[in-house]
Amino acid sequence: MDRQGGYTWNHYGKGSAIGFDVCLTFELAWCLHSPICYPMLQVLISRTGPPAEVAEIAEIPMPVPGPGEVSIRMVAAPVNPADLNFLEGTYGKKAVLPCVPGMEGAGVVEAVGHDVTDLKPGMPVMPVGVVGNWTARRVLPASAVLPLPAGIDMRQAAMLSVNPATAWGLLHAAGTPASGAWVAQNAASSAAGHCVIQIAKVLGLRTVNFVRRPESAAACRELGADLVFTDDADGLAAAKAALAEQHVPVVPLLALNAVGGDSALRLLDLLGMGGTHVTYGAMGRQALKVPNGMLIFKTLTLRGFWLNQWQASLPREEEAELYAKLADWVVSGHLRQEIAAMYPLTEIKAALAHAGQSARGGKVLLDIS
Amino acid sequence: MDRQGGYTWNHYGKGSAIGFDVCLTFELAWCLHSPICYPMLQVLISRTGPPAEVAEIAEIPMPVPGPGEVSIRMVAAPVNPADLNFLEGTYGKKAVLPCVPGMEGAGVVEAVGHDVTDLKPGMPVMPVGVVGNWTARRVLPASAVLPLPAGIDMRQAAMLSVNPATAWGLLHAAGTPASGAWVAQNAASSAAGHCVIQIAKVLGLRTVNFVRRPESAAACRELGADLVFTDDADGLAAAKAALAEQHVPVVPLLALNAVGGDSALRLLDLLGMGGTHVTYGAMGRQALKVPNGMLIFKTLTLRGFWLNQWQASLPREEEAELYAKLADWVVSGHLRQEIAAMYPLTEIKAALAHAGQSARGGKVLLDIS
Repeated sequence: MDRQGGYTWNHYGKGSAIGFDVCLTFELAWCLHSPICYPMLQVLISRTGPPAEVAEIAEIPMPVPGPGEVSIRMVAAPVNPADLNFLEGTYGKKAVLPCVPGMEGAGVVEAVGHDVTDLKPGMPVMPVGVVGNWTARRVLPASAVLPLPAGIDMRQAAMLSVNPATAWGLLHAAGTPASGAWVAQNAASSAAGHCVIQIAKVLGLRTVNFVRRPESAAACRELGADLVFTDDADGLAAAKAALAEQHVPVVPLLALNAVGGDSALRLLDLLGMGGTHVTYGAMGRQALKVPNGMLIFKTLTLRGFWLNQWQASLPREEEAELYAKLADWVVSGHLRQEIAAMYPLTEIKAALAHAGQSARGGKVLLDIS
Repeated sequence: MDRQGGYTWNHYGKGSAIGFDVCLTFELAWCLHSPICYPMLQVLISRTGPPAEVAEIAEIPMPVPGPGEVSIRMVAAPVNPADLNFLEGTYGKKAVLPCVPGMEGAGVVEAVGHDVTDLKPGMPVMPVGVVGNWTARRVLPASAVLPLPAGIDMRQAAMLSVNPATAWGLLHAAGTPASGAWVAQNAASSAAGHCVIQIAKVLGLRTVNFVRRPESAAACRELGADLVFTDDADGLAAAKAALAEQHVPVVPLLALNAVGGDSALRLLDLLGMGGTHVTYGAMGRQALKVPNGMLIFKTLTLRGFWLNQWQASLPREEEAELYAKLADWVVSGHLRQEIAAMYPLTEIKAALAHAGQSARGGKVLLDIS
């Protein structure tokens, strides 16, 4: 199965008016009776490179759903770091060019194929496991679309399948965590880090968090972080002291690393015997250095976590159940992601430039509605 | 349970004749009717440091078994790298001083406590999970002693619980391996590496082996190695080419690392998607360097394997079953370890010096009989 969406529409972009002419010439008679050639906008890349350079706006005919398919009017889609890597060509899964980027988003069902019975026009939905969400409308197999609870905030819904799913997957990387267990993480003030804090709270876990900038600590505490320290040697010492002061002194058995280098090493140091250290990002752009003795005598496990691959490995029912749970937590207010700014699709270059800045204080969202 | 043996005999060494005098004075009357104060030899350390410096010969009264205990006349015991680390004080488990070193060995039951029924005088046995085997005789709880098949080569039996058990544990570090699966390893010409080759063969696995010195390749092939290369960039390229040439091109999903540094990185490179990389040694004395992207996008798992801890975690029945299987393979000739030299207990310093040399071409064994 092509998890990348396999978008094969022609590129009817600004620079290729011929495409649209052809459409007008050959399809004019039919167009008068069909919505298919109403133009609509989407983001398209035909090469990889600096995101704001390679992303273009394309105008394509409105797609219509065939049998087993659903047409979705997209409402919102975020620009994630993984999307930037995808545009740069540095993501683990390469773009099949040309293609529409956008790993997540949410929309409303507009039309369904005649044999689709479980999804109805007007239902809020999210595409799952398919790239291509930076578009006004898209047609997908019904099997790649999950319903969302009525009344859900569509901007929050648009951010459900990357960070909250990552946080859930990370917290379960060493099996189902025991209630009350401690989890350590760096990059705690990232979007994924904030999700880890919130989901850990709902699951009854406790978190010891490391942040690069001291001023990020307050937001972590507000979301329910138990302990927050700066991500340096002093912070590690303070974390050890604080954990030793617990009623029953604890060592975390799960550590979540999105940084690498020394920060990853500090998490290894904090882990207890038999602990698991999961790497899901490399913000520090430094390789992990693992002292052999620590690995052997603490019998540690180091894992790589790649959302894309993990999601693909989940049975369909489990995936649906997980997203239903995450969506409920959004509705109940237990799970919330900050939004730094919203941009219309036509301002994709500005959106990408903004998303590329560190310390944005939230997600950059495309407002497609 | 004290897995270290908890040896509490006094030090009746060369420099402390007083100890023996005391024994003679106070226990003389009883000694006339009991074997307890016949002296016997053992190796003792009262401090950690350079192995040949800290190891001394001690003379102690002959131990006798109490209820639930067994007295063993030791026959042979190897000097393993882990023993050298134990003497140096760099092993993961520290020595409780003074103590008798020696992590493995084999002997013959000499006497049993009145309530021990499953072990009989004359049976060949091996102590399991207890340090203290560099001694002419030792008393152990019957639960720390496993029977060996009659007629087994006692020198090979003495080397059963470290390298063969390590090889078995390593080959099962990612679960029960599928028949025909490929396993990669560095340090293939080490004692553990040779055991990996032989046990993999019995299990129907195939091995791609890396050796530091080209002249070590032949011995690996004789033991059943499928592919052998030098442990450098050229060897890695040759290994990739050879694996690609298989009927169904293969990537190993299990890699066993006893070196660290660049050698460990080459094994990571060779691993397929979702593979497991197990570190059980650090001969290269260089930390593991793991590129984050490789860890994440190949969804790799890195583990530390520590025999001591793994053995302690095995249910008693499983441990007994495993050693019975390994012993059978020794008897049937499927499993064999090279012996570089044998030394009497009294030449412990020479034995330790020899064991500390690299490229010995086999184990240094203490001949205790």
